Amino acid sequence: MKFAMIGLGKMGKNLVKNAVDHDIEVVAYDLNRTARQEMAAYSSKITPVDTLEQLLTELSVNSELERSQRIVWVMVPAGTPTNSTIATLSNMLSAGDILIDGGNSNYKDNLEQNKRLAEKGIKFFDVGTSGGMSGARHGGNFMIGGDKETWPKIEPLFEALAQKNGYLYTGPLGSGHYLKMIHNGIEYGMMQAIAEGFEILEASPYDYDYEAVAKLWNNGSVIRSWLMELAEEQFAKDPKLDEILGQVQASGEGKWTVEESLDLEVPAPIIALSLMMRNRSLQSDTMTGKVVAALRNGFGGHDLAHK
Amino acid sequence: MKFAMIGLGKMGKNLVKNAVDHDIEVVAYDLNRTARQEMAAYSSKITPVDTLEQLLTELSVNSELERSQRIVWVMVPAGTPTNSTIATLSNMLSAGDILIDGGNSNYKDNLEQNKRLAEKGIKFFDVGTSGGMSGARHGGNFMIGGDKETWPKIEPLFEALAQKNGYLYTGPLGSGHYLKMIHNGIEYGMMQAIAEGFEILEASPYDYDYEAVAKLWNNGSVIRSWLMELAEEQFAKDPKLDEILGQVQASGEGKWTVEESLDLEVPAPIIALSLMMRNRSLQSDTMTGKVVAALRNGFGGHDLAHK
Repeated sequence: MKFAMIGLGKMGKNLVKNAVDHDIEVVAYDLNRTARQEMAAYSSKITPVDTLEQLLTELSVNSELERSQRIVWVMVPAGTPTNSTIATLSNMLSAGDILIDGGNSNYKDNLEQNKRLAEKGIKFFDVGTSGGMSGARHGGNFMIGGDKETWPKIEPLFEALAQKNGYLYTGPLGSGHYLKMIHNGIEYGMMQAIAEGFEILEASPYDYDYEAVAKLWNNGSVIRSWLMELAEEQFAKDPKLDEILGQVQASGEGKWTVEESLDLEVPAPIIALSLMMRNRSLQSDTMTGKVVAALRNGFGGHDLAHK
Repeated sequence: MKFAMIGLGKMGKNLVKNAVDHDIEVVAYDLNRTARQEMAAYSSKITPVDTLEQLLTELSVNSELERSQRIVWVMVPAGTPTNSTIATLSNMLSAGDILIDGGNSNYKDNLEQNKRLAEKGIKFFDVGTSGGMSGARHGGNFMIGGDKETWPKIEPLFEALAQKNGYLYTGPLGSGHYLKMIHNGIEYGMMQAIAEGFEILEASPYDYDYEAVAKLWNNGSVIRSWLMELAEEQFAKDPKLDEILGQVQASGEGKWTVEESLDLEVPAPIIALSLMMRNRSLQSDTMTGKVVAALRNGFGGHDLAHK
């Protein structure tokens, strides 16, 4: 088997290594020349290329695949980089070629892109990828939407790259990234719940060893989870997380989950509030706080704190 | 080793079987005569008794333990049953005896009980137990607060009953059930986040197989967890959970976690809201809904639904 990987960053690089370990040939491209060279040094099964034109040519060389079954995996940052790469490829690929968007794209972007891709007969798959860098390297987790008839052609690729039982064909195009979006929304809520527990423990009258607590909870408790394992690892490095600030960015999928719940008019208050608590974490002072304090002063004469 | 178990319900019964499988002798008591007889039939290492007096006598028979080191484990429903059993035992036990409350008690009750127990020299341990019935049977998860000097005397018991790395001495009396309380608060938030994800999937334009989704997420995704494994099992039995109603009781510890966060004046909005969403799930119609609908009708003439 042979496919092309566009994007050799944290995820793409590890997926490529994972693939060649499973005897899959990879044509590897990245804007960054060093990244391409590093890949080439890893295995002779990896062919680095300097341009997308070269990438498509190399894909056909020594391949058991027909020209009409080339597989191109795009693994670049979501948003403009992914969207412009897919736009470029839509002009270069031919009917029957298979295009995979493995990034954290919004499923609505994929549906939009597919209008042009489907017109040209290009088989487009939207793949949500979970499991982080270690998953990409040693067995990832994939939610895969796209044409059902074409799916068997790429299933062996995912069988190789995924953890056991770690891939699922989820339905038509859009369903892969939709499911990944929901996965991330759930993740926001789970993380916030775990974090609030430690917030209360830190304010409690007891002196808990958080690493020991997380380790205990990972061995037979109802809340054992990968997230709690990550908490255990982080507390092992920094017992009270004294070295970091409690500021949390949000990278899009939590917000999309909330937007989706609003569009569908179904409640998802915990996921919504988890996102808003992340937004709150980025504020050092708030207009909300000022307004409530000022009003409370206005009716009750309660003290105000001043700059 | 030998100890007494008071309460042979779902948890107590399984803990007793687990103990005798580890060559520990158990004196077993329950108000229910059938439960006592079932235990006696399981193993000759189990001595059923009809009264608490007999229980204390049996504890000293053929035991390597001094009379002053009798170990009595109370595993009856939290609240009145536990509190009255502990009150009774406080009059029967002697200085040096060890009393374990393994139920879902409020740590504040344990602190209150300990005033009298400590006065009498009885060593009291508050033990939060997680892992459910299967954990109790095959390796549980224990959060253990109490006298540090006495702890080594009962550690072998927990080493036998717990999963590997599944017990932790958490500090002074109260710290065990405090930690279990927080564990349950986290559990409320994690469950609600998972549930909201499936709520959106159910309203989505895609037709997901929830069992397959949960199974996928349990194999390498960031949200893999015991709770997601339980979701997988439940969806396997009832693919859309059509057979049950979405009504969720709360058994106390989530509420105590929220009360604790209020007392400490630290925010725990996700845990609080998860509890309130459980409360909402028990309402078929709400005063809130009526009031908002009526007000909206008042200013904007928006339609009202009538009984």
